[in-house]
Amino acid sequence: MPVWDELWTDARLVTMQGDGLGLIEPGAIAVKDGRIAWVGAMAELPHQDAQRTHDAGGRFVLPGFVDGHTHLVFAGNRIGEFERQLGGATRNELAAEGGGILYTTRETRKASVAELVAIATPRLHRLMSEGVTTLEIKSGYGLDLESELNMLRAARILGRENGVRVVTSFLGAHVVAPEYKGRSADYITHLIEVIFPAALAEGLVDICDGGIEGLAIKPEDMLRLYAAAQAAGIPVRGHTDQYGDVGGGGILAGIGALSADHLEYVSEDSLAAMARAGTVGVLLPGSTLFLNEPRRPPVEWFRKHGVRMALATNCNPGSSPTLSPLLVLALGCSFFRMTPVEALRGMTVNGAAAIGLGGKVGELRAGLPADFVLWDITQPAELCYWLGGSPPRQVVRAGVIGSGA
Amino acid sequence: MPVWDELWTDARLVTMQGDGLGLIEPGAIAVKDGRIAWVGAMAELPHQDAQRTHDAGGRFVLPGFVDGHTHLVFAGNRIGEFERQLGGATRNELAAEGGGILYTTRETRKASVAELVAIATPRLHRLMSEGVTTLEIKSGYGLDLESELNMLRAARILGRENGVRVVTSFLGAHVVAPEYKGRSADYITHLIEVIFPAALAEGLVDICDGGIEGLAIKPEDMLRLYAAAQAAGIPVRGHTDQYGDVGGGGILAGIGALSADHLEYVSEDSLAAMARAGTVGVLLPGSTLFLNEPRRPPVEWFRKHGVRMALATNCNPGSSPTLSPLLVLALGCSFFRMTPVEALRGMTVNGAAAIGLGGKVGELRAGLPADFVLWDITQPAELCYWLGGSPPRQVVRAGVIGSGA
Ligand SMILES: [Zn+2]
Ligand SMILES: [Zn+2]
Repeated sequence: MPVWDELWTDARLVTMQGDGLGLIEPGAIAVKDGRIAWVGAMAELPHQDAQRTHDAGGRFVLPGFVDGHTHLVFAGNRIGEFERQLGGATRNELAAEGGGILYTTRETRKASVAELVAIATPRLHRLMSEGVTTLEIKSGYGLDLESELNMLRAARILGRENGVRVVTSFLGAHVVAPEYKGRSADYITHLIEVIFPAALAEGLVDICDGGIEGLAIKPEDMLRLYAAAQAAGIPVRGHTDQYGDVGGGGILAGIGALSADHLEYVSEDSLAAMARAGTVGVLLPGSTLFLNEPRRPPVEWFRKHGVRMALATNCNPGSSPTLSPLLVLALGCSFFRMTPVEALRGMTVNGAAAIGLGGKVGELRAGLPADFVLWDITQPAELCYWLGGSPPRQVVRAGVIGSGA
Repeated sequence: MPVWDELWTDARLVTMQGDGLGLIEPGAIAVKDGRIAWVGAMAELPHQDAQRTHDAGGRFVLPGFVDGHTHLVFAGNRIGEFERQLGGATRNELAAEGGGILYTTRETRKASVAELVAIATPRLHRLMSEGVTTLEIKSGYGLDLESELNMLRAARILGRENGVRVVTSFLGAHVVAPEYKGRSADYITHLIEVIFPAALAEGLVDICDGGIEGLAIKPEDMLRLYAAAQAAGIPVRGHTDQYGDVGGGGILAGIGALSADHLEYVSEDSLAAMARAGTVGVLLPGSTLFLNEPRRPPVEWFRKHGVRMALATNCNPGSSPTLSPLLVLALGCSFFRMTPVEALRGMTVNGAAAIGLGGKVGELRAGLPADFVLWDITQPAELCYWLGGSPPRQVVRAGVIGSGA
C-alpha cells in the first residue's frame, strides 16, 4: 500500500502560516484519508510513495475559501423589488407593499425542507465552483419554530449532499417575527424558551447569531439570547455597527463573541476591545455596494489595533445577491482598500476563525482536512485584481478531486 | 429548401424596440443566412418552415451584448503594481519606478502582432462567454507607428478568428509617447502626419478616440487630430470629465462625436449639448470602483436632458481589470444607480450607438445580424441583480449557435 493517497508536486503553496501568505515554492502537498498528510518544500519531501502523483506545474495552491457569512437558504424572488428601488421606490414603500425581509419570510415559511434544499443547491454550487470548501449558513427568514428549524435542516443537508463543510448559525433574532410586532422582548423570550432549545436539541446550531443595531431588537434583549446560547456551550456572533456606531463591536467583544460583522461605523474603542478579545471583524462589501451605503469599514483602524479581518459573500436576496468569493476578494481590495494579503487571509484563515474553525480549516497544514484549490494565476494577488475572476483549475475537498461544483 | 435556417419558438424577446425593453412574449425569432429573418409574437408567426426549430422554453432572449469601450489588447502584468498601491504606494511613486501606463507601453511594444493576439484571445473568450457579440478595441499602448498599427492589426485578427464583431478605435492621443515627453503638440502633429494616416491606409481605423482631460494633451491639440479624422470621414469619440469638469462632454458634442466616455464630473451644460448632438454618454463603473474614485456620473441629469447612456467594461490593466459584462450591468445599477432597463439598453442598443453601429446591432429586428443570447433568468432585471452573474444558456452569433466562447 502506498503511504499517501494523493501527492501534488511542483506547487506554489500559499499555506497561510504566519502573518502573511506563508508561501512555499516549489512545494508539495500530500493527502491521506481526506487530510493533509504532509506539506512543505519540494527539497524536504521525504518520499513520493503515493497512489497518484499530480504535477501542479508551478500552479498556486491555496486553502479552499471559507465563506463565513451567508444567508444562502431563502425562498422567493426580490428582483422586482430591486428594480422598483432603482426606479425610486423607498424601502418603506416596498415594505408597505409587502416587500422586504418579511416577504422572504413569507416565502421561506411556505417551502418544505426539500424545497429549501432544492432552491439553495445551485447557489451552493456557484460558491463551490469558485473554490469555497467551507461556509456558514444562517437561519433567520423563518422566525417561527418550524421554519427556523427547516432552514437549519436544509443547511445541514446541503453540506452532507455536496461534500462541503457547513457551519450553521441560529439567527432567529435579526428582525422581529410578524406575530410579535411591537413586542420584541416577548419574541426574544419565545426564542430563548422555545425555538432555540428545539434547534439545539436537534443538533442544528453551531453558532448563535443576532443583530445589535439599536433597531427593532434592543441590545439588552439580544444579550439575553446570547447568554442562553453561551450557557448551552454555543459560541455567539452578531451583525452590528452597519448603519451607525452603536458600540456593537465592543459589546460583542465583551461577551467573547467569535465575530462582529459589517462594522462600517465601528469605533476605535470597539476595535481595541475586539483585538483584546480575539473577536474577528467580518467585512461584507457586497452589501455596502448593493445598498449604496456611503461608509466603508475603517480598515486602517483594524490594522492599527490588530483586529483580524475576514471577508464573506453575505449572500442574501435583499442586500447582497452575490455568489462569487472572487468578486468579494476584489471588492475587499478595490472597494474596501484591503491589501490582497489581507483579503486572501480574510477568505481563508480569518474566515475560519470567524466561524469557530480557527486552526481547523483555511490553512495548508499537516493534519487539517485536505481542502485546497489550484489556480491558474501569475501571483496570489491576481485573485483580488480582476473584477469578476476566472474559476479555479482544480478544487480538492477532503482529498477528493473535482473541478468546482 | 426550408425558408429559414433556424427558428426559436416560445421565447420572451427583449427586442430593445422603442424606449424600453420592447418585450414580446411569447415570441419567435428566425434566422436566415446569419441575419434575423423574422422576429415577433408567436401568434403572428407566418410559418414554421425552418431547417432546425428550437423550443426556447419561455427563456428570455436578448440582443448580444455590445461592449463599446475596451482596451483589450495589451501586454505585461500590473498586478504587482495593484498590490503596491493597496499597500500605500502612490501613483507617482509607481510611475517613478517605471510602472503605470508607460510600463504597459514598453511591454506592448515588445510584443509581435501574433503575441498580442495570443495574449488577448482568452480575454475575448471571457467576454464572449458572458454574451458579448460586438465589442470595440482601442489602440493606445503602442504610441509609435509600428506598435499602434500592431495593436489595431491584432484587434482585427481577434474579430476575424473568433466570429465576433470588432470595431477599432485609434487612441494614439491618450497619453504622450515617451519620445515626445514635454512636447505634446509635436506628438499630436506626428500622429496627424504619420501614424494616423498609416493606420487609415491599412483600413485599421473605424473611430478616432482621444482624451480631453486637461492633462498631458491640450484640448486644442486633441481637436486638431479630431479634425483630421473627420476630414478623412472617420467619426470621433473621447475620454473626458473623469477627474473634474473640463467641459469635455460639451466639446465632444460640439464636434458631433459619437460618444463621450467616463463623465463622472460632466456638467449639466455639457449634457444638454450632448443631448442635442446625439452624443452617447458611455459610463464605465469598473474604473470608478477600481480606482476608488469618489464621484459617480450624474445619471439623473442624463435622464433630465435625455442623453443616451451606454455601459462598457473598459477592460484595461491599470484602471478596470474586468471581463464581465454582467458585473458591469450590476455595477451600473447598484453602484451608479441606473435602472435595469437603462443598464440593459446601455449594453445593447446604446452601446451600439456609441460605436457608430446604431440601428445595425444591439437590437432584435428583422434584417440585423442574428446576434442574440438565451438566458436562464426569471426577468430581464435579474441580469443586473446578481453581483457576478451566471453565464448564458446559449449564444448565437451571426446565426451560429454556441454556448459562449
Ligand atoms: Zn448577515
Ligand atoms: Zn478607455
